[in-house]
Amino acid sequence: MRNDITIVLSAADVKLIVEKRTLNQLMDDLIFQLTEEFKNFNPSKTIIPIRSGFNYSGDLPGLIEWMPIYETNKEVVLKVVGYHPKNPFKFNLPTILSTISSYDSKTGHLKGLVDGVLLTALRTGAASAVASKYMAHVDSSVLGLIGCGAQSITQLHAISRLFPINRILLFDNDLEAVNSFEKRCSILELEVDIEFTEIEALMSQSDIICTATSIDVGKGPLFESYSCKPHLHINAIGSDFPGKIELPLTLLRNSFVCPDFKEQAKKEGECQQLNDDEIGPDLVHVIQNNADYKQLSNILTVFDSTGLALEDKVVMDLFLDQAEYLGIGKKIGLENINEDVFNPYSGIRSKVFS
Amino acid sequence: MRNDITIVLSAADVKLIVEKRTLNQLMDDLIFQLTEEFKNFNPSKTIIPIRSGFNYSGDLPGLIEWMPIYETNKEVVLKVVGYHPKNPFKFNLPTILSTISSYDSKTGHLKGLVDGVLLTALRTGAASAVASKYMAHVDSSVLGLIGCGAQSITQLHAISRLFPINRILLFDNDLEAVNSFEKRCSILELEVDIEFTEIEALMSQSDIICTATSIDVGKGPLFESYSCKPHLHINAIGSDFPGKIELPLTLLRNSFVCPDFKEQAKKEGECQQLNDDEIGPDLVHVIQNNADYKQLSNILTVFDSTGLALEDKVVMDLFLDQAEYLGIGKKIGLENINEDVFNPYSGIRSKVFS
Repeated sequence: MRNDITIVLSAADVKLIVEKRTLNQLMDDLIFQLTEEFKNFNPSKTIIPIRSGFNYSGDLPGLIEWMPIYETNKEVVLKVVGYHPKNPFKFNLPTILSTISSYDSKTGHLKGLVDGVLLTALRTGAASAVASKYMAHVDSSVLGLIGCGAQSITQLHAISRLFPINRILLFDNDLEAVNSFEKRCSILELEVDIEFTEIEALMSQSDIICTATSIDVGKGPLFESYSCKPHLHINAIGSDFPGKIELPLTLLRNSFVCPDFKEQAKKEGECQQLNDDEIGPDLVHVIQNNADYKQLSNILTVFDSTGLALEDKVVMDLFLDQAEYLGIGKKIGLENINEDVFNPYSGIRSKVFS
Repeated sequence: MRNDITIVLSAADVKLIVEKRTLNQLMDDLIFQLTEEFKNFNPSKTIIPIRSGFNYSGDLPGLIEWMPIYETNKEVVLKVVGYHPKNPFKFNLPTILSTISSYDSKTGHLKGLVDGVLLTALRTGAASAVASKYMAHVDSSVLGLIGCGAQSITQLHAISRLFPINRILLFDNDLEAVNSFEKRCSILELEVDIEFTEIEALMSQSDIICTATSIDVGKGPLFESYSCKPHLHINAIGSDFPGKIELPLTLLRNSFVCPDFKEQAKKEGECQQLNDDEIGPDLVHVIQNNADYKQLSNILTVFDSTGLALEDKVVMDLFLDQAEYLGIGKKIGLENINEDVFNPYSGIRSKVFS
């Protein structure tokens, strides 16, 4: 690979890669790679700071954050992600808009830039599948989806790759999202019953639940009292901002709560509600010490998924590898790299005067 | 402007804009815009956090940083910049590699992505010119350049637009950089005498000096004792990392030291060496209270330039405006934005199975 070329994967390029590889194979690749990455994660070789960003209220509230990760002697991956809950209604845009960049840490060169909208949805789904693999009951067949927006499709897709899901229970305050769900997930060709329910029934009948709502800061939790199967596993996706929570404290206190990134989850996730000693080890620990955690599939568990830059790195690398293999993507000389590295004006042909 | 399109300005696009606008006009635009931005800067409307990043030692030491800025209700600009001093010698790449991105803060959409190598050199030069305008003697004609790499060309260019420079004194430990300097700056068509000198002579004869070296962490300052003209103004560019300094403490203590960004300069700039009460107000304050600082042109002054995201925003906006006006740049549908904003798989045509 030339060290002065940036591979740009547009939305169309990313879709083409998915089509060539097929949706299921791509999700399987991603779940496999992510599991391997968690198994081999070494915090002395891979540095993941807590994300930071700008957030604002007013007529168009939202936030723009950057999520960096540094893999020693290899690459820096930086995802910039915007969360703007009024996007679908005001601008016909997804709530989450995002791009992911990868830099060669030997030189600082931008190696690749890729859509982060589909990739975030994919990797967030894959992360829930991996967490469910280590915490949900292996025979889980009923999946509850609280929040039926964009993320719910990839949650369902990823989890359906590992579990024999045959019944899906939906809840969303936005009935349009509920009504369009079956059509949106038809591409997955799943043989499943899909039913709209109230949260109470959804909670009591599901084996696995994914919560991915746009509930406002300070308005959570989504429900208070509940009954559930003893082995229920919940992937809590939506809580990813200070003050934004989805699950009731009693449920969290009755569960084994496993965050993706403990320090971040305490700031932005469901773990905001908990004391330190009420929070379990993170997903990497559970996976790396799997033998000690076999009982999790029989008890109430919550994966507090705030979003991990490691997941972005894995999905970015997967798409860049596929792009290279398939010859897809635009090659752009983005940085001003001249024959004379000491002359920023080298290659400029005009006079100084007009 | 459509809200799903990203304008990408490649190195070639950026050069074309410079050629169409001409180098001098572009630098004049930039100096003017930057001055206006400093004059109108309001910290309650524009938020600039201290940059952060990853840095590493070893065979290929370096750092990759991100510099964010948020202008309320308008845009978030993020520059990612790598500093890898072995790049020119090991990889035939510039020491500084960089790209700049602009996001619509209403939606999170990536509006534009532009080369940050030429743009960083241009805006760093322009910042020195603005600082010199408010601190150097108006008749300054002798410019000293300590460090003759890529940044020295744009330092000279910017300063030559505001001052009647007719003599340039050069110092660099790398004689190749010294020897190639005249050829590199020939595009500027300046009528100047260019001489190589030792630092001592350069210090004593210059009216304005720019220091832009790659001196290693812990190896500074570049010199100890000195004599100089009483009105000497120094633009200290190179000190931008903890432990990296260029100027001796005695000189700083004898000077009015004006940082671009005080908190950052205390961490990474020449101000690392100073106590709080030895550091002057920042450049925005000097410009906004210009009447109180007229005497600066007659005394020893240092602009501690660590690099300000506001400068990146100004140069980014200038190039995006010119690109739109001239019809230059690639329009890419980068983010996966579908007709159905709730369906990340919308528009994917293939089956799920291979």
